[in-house]
Amino acid sequence: MRDRTRDGCLNRAEAYWLSHFPRMWRAIMAIPPLRRLANRKIISRAAGRVKSRPYRFSTLADYTSWESLMDRTYFSRYLPPRDLPNPPLPESMTGLFKVRQGGPTLSEDSTVLFMSFAQWFADGFLMTDPDDRRRTFTSHQIDLSPVYGLSRAQTDALRVNPEARGEKGRMKTETVNGEIYAPRLFDETKLVLEDLANPKFDEQQAFKSEFKHLQKPSSFKRNRERLITVLGPKPASERVAELAKTTFAFGGERANITPFTAALNTLFLREHNRLAGMLEDAYPGWDDERVFQTARNTNIVLLIKIVVEEYINHISPYHFQLFADPSVSWRAIWNRPNWIPLEFNLLYRWHSMTPDKFFIGLQHVPVKESLQDNSYLTTRGLAETLVSASNQRGWRLGLFNTADDLVQVELAGIKQSRENRIGSYNDYREAFKYPRVTRFEQITDDQDRISALQNLYGNVDNIEFLVGLFAEDIPPRAAVPPLMGRMVAFDAFSHAFTNPLLSEQVFNEKTFSKEGIETIQNTHTLKDILNRNLAPGQRPAEISMTYR
Amino acid sequence: MRDRTRDGCLNRAEAYWLSHFPRMWRAIMAIPPLRRLANRKIISRAAGRVKSRPYRFSTLADYTSWESLMDRTYFSRYLPPRDLPNPPLPESMTGLFKVRQGGPTLSEDSTVLFMSFAQWFADGFLMTDPDDRRRTFTSHQIDLSPVYGLSRAQTDALRVNPEARGEKGRMKTETVNGEIYAPRLFDETKLVLEDLANPKFDEQQAFKSEFKHLQKPSSFKRNRERLITVLGPKPASERVAELAKTTFAFGGERANITPFTAALNTLFLREHNRLAGMLEDAYPGWDDERVFQTARNTNIVLLIKIVVEEYINHISPYHFQLFADPSVSWRAIWNRPNWIPLEFNLLYRWHSMTPDKFFIGLQHVPVKESLQDNSYLTTRGLAETLVSASNQRGWRLGLFNTADDLVQVELAGIKQSRENRIGSYNDYREAFKYPRVTRFEQITDDQDRISALQNLYGNVDNIEFLVGLFAEDIPPRAAVPPLMGRMVAFDAFSHAFTNPLLSEQVFNEKTFSKEGIETIQNTHTLKDILNRNLAPGQRPAEISMTYR
Repeated sequence: MRDRTRDGCLNRAEAYWLSHFPRMWRAIMAIPPLRRLANRKIISRAAGRVKSRPYRFSTLADYTSWESLMDRTYFSRYLPPRDLPNPPLPESMTGLFKVRQGGPTLSEDSTVLFMSFAQWFADGFLMTDPDDRRRTFTSHQIDLSPVYGLSRAQTDALRVNPEARGEKGRMKTETVNGEIYAPRLFDETKLVLEDLANPKFDEQQAFKSEFKHLQKPSSFKRNRERLITVLGPKPASERVAELAKTTFAFGGERANITPFTAALNTLFLREHNRLAGMLEDAYPGWDDERVFQTARNTNIVLLIKIVVEEYINHISPYHFQLFADPSVSWRAIWNRPNWIPLEFNLLYRWHSMTPDKFFIGLQHVPVKESLQDNSYLTTRGLAETLVSASNQRGWRLGLFNTADDLVQVELAGIKQSRENRIGSYNDYREAFKYPRVTRFEQITDDQDRISALQNLYGNVDNIEFLVGLFAEDIPPRAAVPPLMGRMVAFDAFSHAFTNPLLSEQVFNEKTFSKEGIETIQNTHTLKDILNRNLAPGQRPAEISMTYR
Repeated sequence: MRDRTRDGCLNRAEAYWLSHFPRMWRAIMAIPPLRRLANRKIISRAAGRVKSRPYRFSTLADYTSWESLMDRTYFSRYLPPRDLPNPPLPESMTGLFKVRQGGPTLSEDSTVLFMSFAQWFADGFLMTDPDDRRRTFTSHQIDLSPVYGLSRAQTDALRVNPEARGEKGRMKTETVNGEIYAPRLFDETKLVLEDLANPKFDEQQAFKSEFKHLQKPSSFKRNRERLITVLGPKPASERVAELAKTTFAFGGERANITPFTAALNTLFLREHNRLAGMLEDAYPGWDDERVFQTARNTNIVLLIKIVVEEYINHISPYHFQLFADPSVSWRAIWNRPNWIPLEFNLLYRWHSMTPDKFFIGLQHVPVKESLQDNSYLTTRGLAETLVSASNQRGWRLGLFNTADDLVQVELAGIKQSRENRIGSYNDYREAFKYPRVTRFEQITDDQDRISALQNLYGNVDNIEFLVGLFAEDIPPRAAVPPLMGRMVAFDAFSHAFTNPLLSEQVFNEKTFSKEGIETIQNTHTLKDILNRNLAPGQRPAEISMTYR
């Protein structure tokens, strides 16, 4: 058993209370005013855990300046920069991440749908500028940018923009095998094999010209280089051309990364067009722009609903099922506009959850081969692809559980953390109201982890934030370890509930329309959205983030 | 006597209580915990008067969209657009603004220093984009942009940027008659008379090259055109060249507009360099950048102190003297980032306060002639110029009291208000918790105003926001009429106290240094700042926003 003496009395009591007494919690949930009150208290406690924004620092400088307080192209940070004594060489840390003998540990109850949603959702607001890793081009908001893009020019490129009846407010689509998808990004006539084998090839030149303002799919270049090394230039360029033909024109640079992220993006794209059709019918006087904007308002709030009511409830070990009541933040002192902390960007690296194979349809596909290959999606269709994702468990989050191909990505996280002088695991425990640990045995009861940490760091006080975070044991019923859970809850609630669309004067029928508000009220899970966006004649599908 | 039946019971009680019982208020101010409590309650009541931001609309569109909620290059707005029935033609409204027979009414106790401070201060954040009057390039913050500019490039142009001892963190200056000022903007060799007479002349071409990124002084072109019309091209270009030689390189496009605004900008420029010197001495290890940024942090908060403790207290009819306690907003539900409403931009047009002549030194100068002529400032020096401004009363704010030269500017405000479809005076009374008026006699007891309003609008419900606002009587001890007072208080407090520099994790010695915090604590009035920035050998000066 793990040494629990440094868990903190109040923390233990709170965790116990919330993850026991299922009948009491069911009773509370059955009485609407009690349910609202409990929801508000739990969310406010989590979102008020540390002092509200603005924080003292951003990644701009080691002291506070007017620029550091205003320039949101930098990440904020919870804690000031701090150098740790003698951090281990990143090369010596491979063993900490790699799957240990005996093979990977599966997650208790998280499906690949959960893992893919986490990936696709976080890619919508965690973007690091590749040219200066202290900086970002995020809007710091949940805004469905993977669907709509990051700028007016990108959004316009993705929109059908006529006033013609039946097309008002719609996003561009293409039909494949009788189902609706985003249009393809590349112009096939520009995908010349010799070019693709050339290391200097710029993929943006092969975009359809209508999409010239869109971002480059982020892993396209890396994947191409890998394929050239593995297969040699000619077979690689043939494979790259094949992959490129399946790439969708999406708003987000990473939405094409796996068939599952592409499926989730497709889902919200279809929902946008469904909403636009509904609004066009209900408000014949509205122009293209108003239909588009009102559908987008609604679609963004649908995502927030899913995040709170399906995703967070899956992560949380609580019996109480939280719900997205916008008013929880209206009078809250933690209602301060979001500004993504670098530490949050780092902690969301949940690569260990990615299995080495995906089960798609009836096939087992090595993850590597599925990358950027949307033919897996279009062959099986949206519903079957998402069903596959929810019939398979992901791996368990934590050390000794990262697939070989992703270990380098873990080490890149460690390097980014050090470049930004992120402090120790204990510093962040303290910041988030956990007592500092004094023995390795207080972090985990896993002997392998304890010895590895001891060898690498010597002293618990020297453990890096990012390593300590993933070294903790995952409690029963939870999807992530305790410190991460607390940080994710803090950030998720203070992010989602401060979205301007949920604010007191904005969250009403005038902003979303009567139909939009009803849709918001009737949507709780991805399944709800999927089953109103099936291909004609398809039967309702069962999908879930929780493995059953 | 004005008909007070529509003032509202609670409003009357509140106003009575706060503007009577001076001895009680003095007693409260003498007991620190009571003083802090009263301060917090009065500020929170004013800042919580209407629902907190974000508002439903910006000037982008007549409905709410993700863009309208995110794009801060538009003004926000308190109320949705609304068309008023049969508004009078602007040309027919001249008489409403022009000084009536019998001459102008002087303000009871507001000096030209108060009026000039209002002008200079508001010009720091109320900027309308001349190419699209729905838009702005403000930061929506009190940030001393008239001193520091609006962008990194502008700030850099205004800074001395060496690591040399004795110059760290300083702004560029020039000495004139033994006193410190900003450097001159124009390169005299580029001020060619033929060019200045050419209507197409672009003044930016005559800037010193180091200042090429600075904004054009906003009224330079208009003033030049006026002079060409009045004096003819040749004498006009000589006068323009003379004026241009006195123009300072400032961050704000309007800071050169009168010798008094230039004096206020000079005051904060000198204070910056004084602070930088103090920090350089105290922290020899700091580099140029850190000294600059820390001096700026402090200087911005000094401006906020002056705004709350001198400016707002002058405007307010209350006996209680408010003070800038940063913590009033830390737990406040109105703590939401500022986003300047268009209505606030409009209501701050206090042109009627500007007299037709300035008294500078021993001279009476027509305001028109003083425009952009900083020789009045440099000849007399900073202290004497500010003393002149505080020995002269401004005119009283309101209808029938605008100097001839500014009447067109008032009409431009009316036009901007209509372009943006700003609603009625009664709509805004209601929004700010005053009962709607039902008779003209409830607005003012001035018979001329009543008949003019009656003739122009027929019905009290049709009175435009901007006209009703200035038609109200000014209560005893106040500087502005009641609705405007309430709107200004709401905006000033929710603007000033949500400045990130005052926030809970930022307002401390780490951000400002020990010396900076002490300076902030010891500064309450412009006089405090002036008397530590006198020319060598000068005696302390007495200046005040309140006429004595």
